[in-house]
Amino acid sequence: MRQGLEVAEAQQLVLSAAQPLPPENLAVGRALGRALAEPVRSTRRLPPADCSAMDGYAVRAADLQGADRRPVTLRLAYEVAAGGLCPRPLGTGEAARIFTGAPVPPGADSVVRQEDAEAGDGVVHIRVAPSPREHVRDAGEDVEPGDRVLDAGHVIGPAEVGVLASLGRTVVRVSQRPRVAILSGGDELVEVDGDVAGGRIVSSNSYTLSAQCRLLGAEPMYLGIARDRPDDLERLLAAGLHSDCIVSSAGVSVGDHDHVRPVLEKLGCRLHFWGVKMKPGFPVAFGSFEAAGGPLVFGLPGNPVSASVAFEQFVRPALRRMMGHPHPFLPTLPVRVAQTLEKKPGRLHFVRVRLRREGDQWWATSTGNQSSGVLTSLARADGLLVFPAEATRLRAGERAQVQLLDVDALGDGSEAPGSAERPWG
Amino acid sequence: MRQGLEVAEAQQLVLSAAQPLPPENLAVGRALGRALAEPVRSTRRLPPADCSAMDGYAVRAADLQGADRRPVTLRLAYEVAAGGLCPRPLGTGEAARIFTGAPVPPGADSVVRQEDAEAGDGVVHIRVAPSPREHVRDAGEDVEPGDRVLDAGHVIGPAEVGVLASLGRTVVRVSQRPRVAILSGGDELVEVDGDVAGGRIVSSNSYTLSAQCRLLGAEPMYLGIARDRPDDLERLLAAGLHSDCIVSSAGVSVGDHDHVRPVLEKLGCRLHFWGVKMKPGFPVAFGSFEAAGGPLVFGLPGNPVSASVAFEQFVRPALRRMMGHPHPFLPTLPVRVAQTLEKKPGRLHFVRVRLRREGDQWWATSTGNQSSGVLTSLARADGLLVFPAEATRLRAGERAQVQLLDVDALGDGSEAPGSAERPWG
Repeated sequence: MRQGLEVAEAQQLVLSAAQPLPPENLAVGRALGRALAEPVRSTRRLPPADCSAMDGYAVRAADLQGADRRPVTLRLAYEVAAGGLCPRPLGTGEAARIFTGAPVPPGADSVVRQEDAEAGDGVVHIRVAPSPREHVRDAGEDVEPGDRVLDAGHVIGPAEVGVLASLGRTVVRVSQRPRVAILSGGDELVEVDGDVAGGRIVSSNSYTLSAQCRLLGAEPMYLGIARDRPDDLERLLAAGLHSDCIVSSAGVSVGDHDHVRPVLEKLGCRLHFWGVKMKPGFPVAFGSFEAAGGPLVFGLPGNPVSASVAFEQFVRPALRRMMGHPHPFLPTLPVRVAQTLEKKPGRLHFVRVRLRREGDQWWATSTGNQSSGVLTSLARADGLLVFPAEATRLRAGERAQVQLLDVDALGDGSEAPGSAERPWG
Repeated sequence: MRQGLEVAEAQQLVLSAAQPLPPENLAVGRALGRALAEPVRSTRRLPPADCSAMDGYAVRAADLQGADRRPVTLRLAYEVAAGGLCPRPLGTGEAARIFTGAPVPPGADSVVRQEDAEAGDGVVHIRVAPSPREHVRDAGEDVEPGDRVLDAGHVIGPAEVGVLASLGRTVVRVSQRPRVAILSGGDELVEVDGDVAGGRIVSSNSYTLSAQCRLLGAEPMYLGIARDRPDDLERLLAAGLHSDCIVSSAGVSVGDHDHVRPVLEKLGCRLHFWGVKMKPGFPVAFGSFEAAGGPLVFGLPGNPVSASVAFEQFVRPALRRMMGHPHPFLPTLPVRVAQTLEKKPGRLHFVRVRLRREGDQWWATSTGNQSSGVLTSLARADGLLVFPAEATRLRAGERAQVQLLDVDALGDGSEAPGSAERPWG
């Protein structure tokens, strides 16, 4: 077991130990947010036929040579129905009324926009000379049979759901969702509806960590509160051995070490590290029950902010790797520091910050009290500013990176000075 | 009814018409992503008592004057249990073993870190002279009774779930989720498992739009495909009148106008606009059944990309407003254009782009074919580049704004040239 690692070293150990879960077949409508476990190939051509890109008239381009100088009148043969049914191929000297997306009739090779034509009684007068294929979307423009439309690892968003539906796919093969066993520990802890008389506190970590799992698409299983006795902790940890990942947060840090380690080892856990040079979150532990094909296990600090920040740095990448997701870490944003920040060297600090956009620049301001017990300051934070381990000062105006916790904190650009309410107003 | 509006004008009309839905009471565990309908006040003090910020020894600071010059030995009176129970107040000349987060015993006023002390047989030798309150977290440091902890409109993320749990809140009052009735129209359309012989195509819009609703936290209700007959469309629209919002996408644009408008008006819809100067998505319509206290209604173009892009510009802000969410629009990101883009003036273009990060700069590259039928290009896109209505050229290197569709496209900073694998390695 290694102790006092750098954040990035510890993250690499976690990523090395986490493996993608086996795939499962899932109805497309339930696969939103999942990563494909295999590429998706098409058996179809999309669009299935040449179709019109405009509302107007399907024509034969050869009939309209010179029409831009002297309008040409064509017989209006029929209207292409939305279902795409045409009574017969289009003949010489004929035009067919057509709408966007409808298939171009056999015999026609071009579409004239309705604003370049004037309908008469059974005829249409046209004053442009289209090139062949003008305003025609080619069959297969989007997808050809055999195309690899989506790669393995691609995350299914709304457009992917539509693409899969277009291909007639009702079921996709995706990585399974990790089941995450969550427990906390401490004689002082009660559940949310428990009695807090005598200085007891709610085991809020289990609620926060379950919500963090859910946001990532993992499936939390809350096992409860272990009392400060080895047998009780062992009982709960054993109940988590059938999960994919155990996340434990306990009440006290040194107590944890003395108390949790023998229990984990008795159950067959191999500890990979204990302690990472970061603040908040130093006393974070990571191990695995790999000999038994069992879960990864994370021991998170008991302080609410420490537990939540350590989850984002270590548990998140493990769960994303299990889900086959290509982006393990929180997205980051370049910012400038609004107020000078100082610390001692040696530990990387994750500073809770709010973001403010000025033009194309984000400014990060500390949410204030950075005590690891102040969970409300994490609720007010838009992100975590990375204050590197060996740095001692980030001066006001200096550049830094922020791990983004809330994408809406980016703003919609309407904050830009001198802009109208929206930049594209 | 207004026609050919600018995008921002049309968005303002939508926001004016959309009202927050009535609140509902919800179990905290199910409220993730919801906006609070009323502020949350605390009836508790957090932490409930002064507690230790370190593992070490609770002491009386007065006993340790001069200990930094000449170590002082204190009697080890007891250990503060994790549950916080102390047998008696700490007396003069005594110390108590304490761990992070545990309440400081009565009589003690300071905590000495364990690395500044050395335990002996029933005693502890201390070589620092702490100030009163050193390494003590004050009772109420996080929350005092009566504090307004979260404002109305605050969106509930994981940290908020933990804060609410800490306060003993099991139920919160949040804005309801909009129920969104989704229908499509066209004789050429089939469901995902339908027969596509003869040029029929899957009604993919209903799947894409349902997924877009779900991502926002709204509740899609898929009503089906209306055939190209007024009575069939009327039947489906009527089935949607009990929803909060109807989103209809149909197969052809001019056809829609002629066909849909009389049906909507017959059902009591007041149309606010039809046609917005944008591409893709020009033929978008918006109305409301306000006289009947009924839903908003959006008529989206039939082309898959047009429908999805128009949803993000107009339906999204309406749904977010209904949910009491403070950020109606897609978050935007300043970028530089990787390749020169050109267009005619008059319509705002939403260009599907991929993002690439170089240092602190994102570069946006078109996904290629921008035909509004090519849904795979939207699946490949990280965002929509805003090419303003009157602009005709964005030169390579020029600045622009991108509406972000996938937050993971920001990257985690490891793409920065010259950086280690992670910027905080």
